[in-house]
Amino acid sequence: MKALGEIARFIGGEMRGDGSASVSRVVHPALAQGASDLAFVLSLKELSVLDSGRAVNAVVPAGTGSLTIPNQIVVSRPRLVLAKLTELFERPVYVVQGIHPLASVDPTASVGQETSIGPFCWIGPNSRVGVCCRLVANVSVGAEVTIGDNSLLHAGVCVGDRCEIGSRVTIQPNATIGGDGFAFVTREPGSVESVRKTGEVRNFNIEIVRINSLGNVVIEDDVEIGAGTCIDRGTLGETRIGRGSKLDNLIQVGHNTRVGSNCLIVAQVGLGGSSTVGDRVVIGGQSGVPDHVSLGSDAVIYARSGITGPVPEKAAMIGIPALPLREFMDKEVKMRRLPKLIKDLQRQIASLAEKLNSLLPPK
Amino acid sequence: MKALGEIARFIGGEMRGDGSASVSRVVHPALAQGASDLAFVLSLKELSVLDSGRAVNAVVPAGTGSLTIPNQIVVSRPRLVLAKLTELFERPVYVVQGIHPLASVDPTASVGQETSIGPFCWIGPNSRVGVCCRLVANVSVGAEVTIGDNSLLHAGVCVGDRCEIGSRVTIQPNATIGGDGFAFVTREPGSVESVRKTGEVRNFNIEIVRINSLGNVVIEDDVEIGAGTCIDRGTLGETRIGRGSKLDNLIQVGHNTRVGSNCLIVAQVGLGGSSTVGDRVVIGGQSGVPDHVSLGSDAVIYARSGITGPVPEKAAMIGIPALPLREFMDKEVKMRRLPKLIKDLQRQIASLAEKLNSLLPPK
Amino acid sequence: MKALGEIARFIGGEMRGDGSASVSRVVHPALAQGASDLAFVLSLKELSVLDSGRAVNAVVPAGTGSLTIPNQIVVSRPRLVLAKLTELFERPVYVVQGIHPLASVDPTASVGQETSIGPFCWIGPNSRVGVCCRLVANVSVGAEVTIGDNSLLHAGVCVGDRCEIGSRVTIQPNATIGGDGFAFVTREPGSVESVRKTGEVRNFNIEIVRINSLGNVVIEDDVEIGAGTCIDRGTLGETRIGRGSKLDNLIQVGHNTRVGSNCLIVAQVGLGGSSTVGDRVVIGGQSGVPDHVSLGSDAVIYARSGITGPVPEKAAMIGIPALPLREFMDKEVKMRRLPKLIKDLQRQIASLAEKLNSLLPPK
Repeated sequence: MKALGEIARFIGGEMRGDGSASVSRVVHPALAQGASDLAFVLSLKELSVLDSGRAVNAVVPAGTGSLTIPNQIVVSRPRLVLAKLTELFERPVYVVQGIHPLASVDPTASVGQETSIGPFCWIGPNSRVGVCCRLVANVSVGAEVTIGDNSLLHAGVCVGDRCEIGSRVTIQPNATIGGDGFAFVTREPGSVESVRKTGEVRNFNIEIVRINSLGNVVIEDDVEIGAGTCIDRGTLGETRIGRGSKLDNLIQVGHNTRVGSNCLIVAQVGLGGSSTVGDRVVIGGQSGVPDHVSLGSDAVIYARSGITGPVPEKAAMIGIPALPLREFMDKEVKMRRLPKLIKDLQRQIASLAEKLNSLLPPK
Repeated sequence: MKALGEIARFIGGEMRGDGSASVSRVVHPALAQGASDLAFVLSLKELSVLDSGRAVNAVVPAGTGSLTIPNQIVVSRPRLVLAKLTELFERPVYVVQGIHPLASVDPTASVGQETSIGPFCWIGPNSRVGVCCRLVANVSVGAEVTIGDNSLLHAGVCVGDRCEIGSRVTIQPNATIGGDGFAFVTREPGSVESVRKTGEVRNFNIEIVRINSLGNVVIEDDVEIGAGTCIDRGTLGETRIGRGSKLDNLIQVGHNTRVGSNCLIVAQVGLGGSSTVGDRVVIGGQSGVPDHVSLGSDAVIYARSGITGPVPEKAAMIGIPALPLREFMDKEVKMRRLPKLIKDLQRQIASLAEKLNSLLPPK
Repeated sequence: MKALGEIARFIGGEMRGDGSASVSRVVHPALAQGASDLAFVLSLKELSVLDSGRAVNAVVPAGTGSLTIPNQIVVSRPRLVLAKLTELFERPVYVVQGIHPLASVDPTASVGQETSIGPFCWIGPNSRVGVCCRLVANVSVGAEVTIGDNSLLHAGVCVGDRCEIGSRVTIQPNATIGGDGFAFVTREPGSVESVRKTGEVRNFNIEIVRINSLGNVVIEDDVEIGAGTCIDRGTLGETRIGRGSKLDNLIQVGHNTRVGSNCLIVAQVGLGGSSTVGDRVVIGGQSGVPDHVSLGSDAVIYARSGITGPVPEKAAMIGIPALPLREFMDKEVKMRRLPKLIKDLQRQIASLAEKLNSLLPPK
């Protein structure tokens, strides 16, 4: 139970009503009922589902007007307040204390103080896990891996040999860090090279030779990696995810790729091999970045964009192929107008023809 | 071995030939040979690969005409018959009896009668698994999870704390139920907000703050979840998959999203956070639905569609951006016609100019 | 440590400088420093990051011109040389010797000589694993599975009952082989059938019936399967990946699908159920192939293509919907020209109108 007055102070809101009232959980406005629920109202739209007969306590955005809810905390920038509220009421993942008897930690590996290693987790030889880490269950950590302090690896995560994971990193279930890169070469120039040169398939991929991945993956501090996301190791060097970047679920990060700091990459994006992403880049869901292409810092890529070439800093890109936002809009407007323009022309020509015919001598 | 006459009765077909003949398996027509194989012919096209010299027994669609196969079961709606046939000849996944000695069931968890818990499965504290469930191997079930009766969790499945799984639910390998939502906010308005307002990146994502996921995932009865699919937990409330809905592989379901009942969602679809999908909606593979967007009941979304706004009930949508099917077709036809229309105009203008020039006094 | 002269012979390059010098690792040119590093320079572009003051040994492409690096191996087709170099310097995944005490091998299963079965790996009844295989950790292998010789299953891989895996196959972490196909049918003709016939949703998916997957997955020799990739089992027969084909991460392969030999399929591609892919086909990332559609041998599909119908042999396809490369380019050029063509027409008409007006009697 937490007192509303305390909560108001923590989230930087203005208390109206009884600040000594206590709540046990924060809920969606549609679910709020009774004295122990604190409804969190993100927007005016959500206000409509708040039942003022059942809800007793609510966090509401400034400018909401008068409400009959007895206890209110009025806030600005409610999404940021939501972050603080969920920090206050966090429900951390359950982990065992210490090393579970059905975990397997190689005798040459080291595990820091207060680190939890759940059932069926494996830590390979010479790996080092820092303090206060949590490996939930069925986590595989290969050989010579390093994991910093306070990192959380959810169930089913696989980390390959020699990868380096920073501190305060969160990896969601079933993510793969350090699979081998998809790197192959044909003994003779193959079909893709021929299409690039001639526009036609004139060569064939007779024999495919594997390029092994000797490198690793480096994940810097404060990174979050989503469920099912796959980050391949570098060929000779590293694949790197920069400090504070957040990757959603089911993302593909190719080998040698470098993602800068504080990026936000939404689900099902594909980053080709050796691509580079600057700092603070936002990439919408299901977008694709080809091999060897770079995105400048602070670029914003809309969802489902198909990037085809380098993107400058601060560019907003959209579409397939992706264009700068304004260029895309202009082009859309232009193309959409064409049928009407042509109809206008047809009419003008018909009228000209008529006039012209009136000048011609009758047949 | 099952008698053809019995099979005919079960699948609602008409027996022609020896109903007492017995078969041990049902096979693709190309593979059928000998007395113990029952060929299943889905369509006239498949009939061509049925070798009447080798096949002895076949299920064939009505209207096939005369065949030399000795024993035939004639059916209508063959795809539905296939479902019944595969029910009759089902080959259930292998599971151990009871709780495997190398499984880990928390002492506070409860496991129903006749439930199988395979090797390296973990059931966290206070979780309850119903009767006749099957957890194949390497399945992680966190704390305070409930699983109904007769549900099947294949190898590698991860279910996070507090999630609720109904009865007769099937979850394919390596799926993740209850990863954290991808929910972040910048302390000050960031690049995406600035692009939305001004079309340009004028603000930068200086500091990214995490919104924790306090909610859970609820999967209702008779749902099927595909391999590698990820369903994130709600922020304050739940993410819900409605009764009887079927999700294919590698699908992303964002936090707070609600999918109705009896939906069919094909592989690699992405459903954004807080999106809602009505009942009986069909979504083709690789389509995307943005955050907060709703699809009405009975909508049909073609494969690879990029939904951009709310979709009404019973709408058929296609394209990027997705349009109603007929509008899309009309637009396609219109655009495709433009080059020819312009050529016509050029010809008409040339002819007008010629006529006009003949009227002008010679220079 | 390996001598440069030996390396030069192995990769087929020309030694310049001291062939008796030894190196311990091969690195990206930006990282090369000191006598034990061998810099690998893929292209002239990479040459610029090679610090000739720090690097002592380098593999360089022919035609590079004179360099101050003391020891050089000059090569042609450097990408192929990279493959050989990474073979020479391979850093194989760490695996335990023999069967780990915390692995579970069913007493009826057989495991070949020199095969490693890591911690928390499960081999189901009657399965047979060949010689010199490596199952890293947390690998689930169901019942009646066969795995050839020298195959490598990384951590978290799930292989379902009755699947057949060849020799020298590599499966990256968290891949799923043999999930059930996504095969359902409505009892009465449903919404999709109605849209196909009428363009509108007039029927509803009242009841969804499951078609069980009785078949399996066959993975031929020398195949590589990427992390998180899902290959569903066949309905009655098999889903097959042909000899030497390489699949990247997070790919969906539907039930009954057949992929030929030596294909290269890039990340996040979706292959619909019962689709067929010929030999030596290349499919770019995030592309989709619908159910029942076939791609001819040696076809090259660009990234993010939406295939909509059968693709002939040796075709190069691009776009959504995908068109042959040249047709796509022609169409693009044509469409892009339209606004200018229309402007031209407007100008011509205005000039005609002016001329014509000069001929008309003044009002």
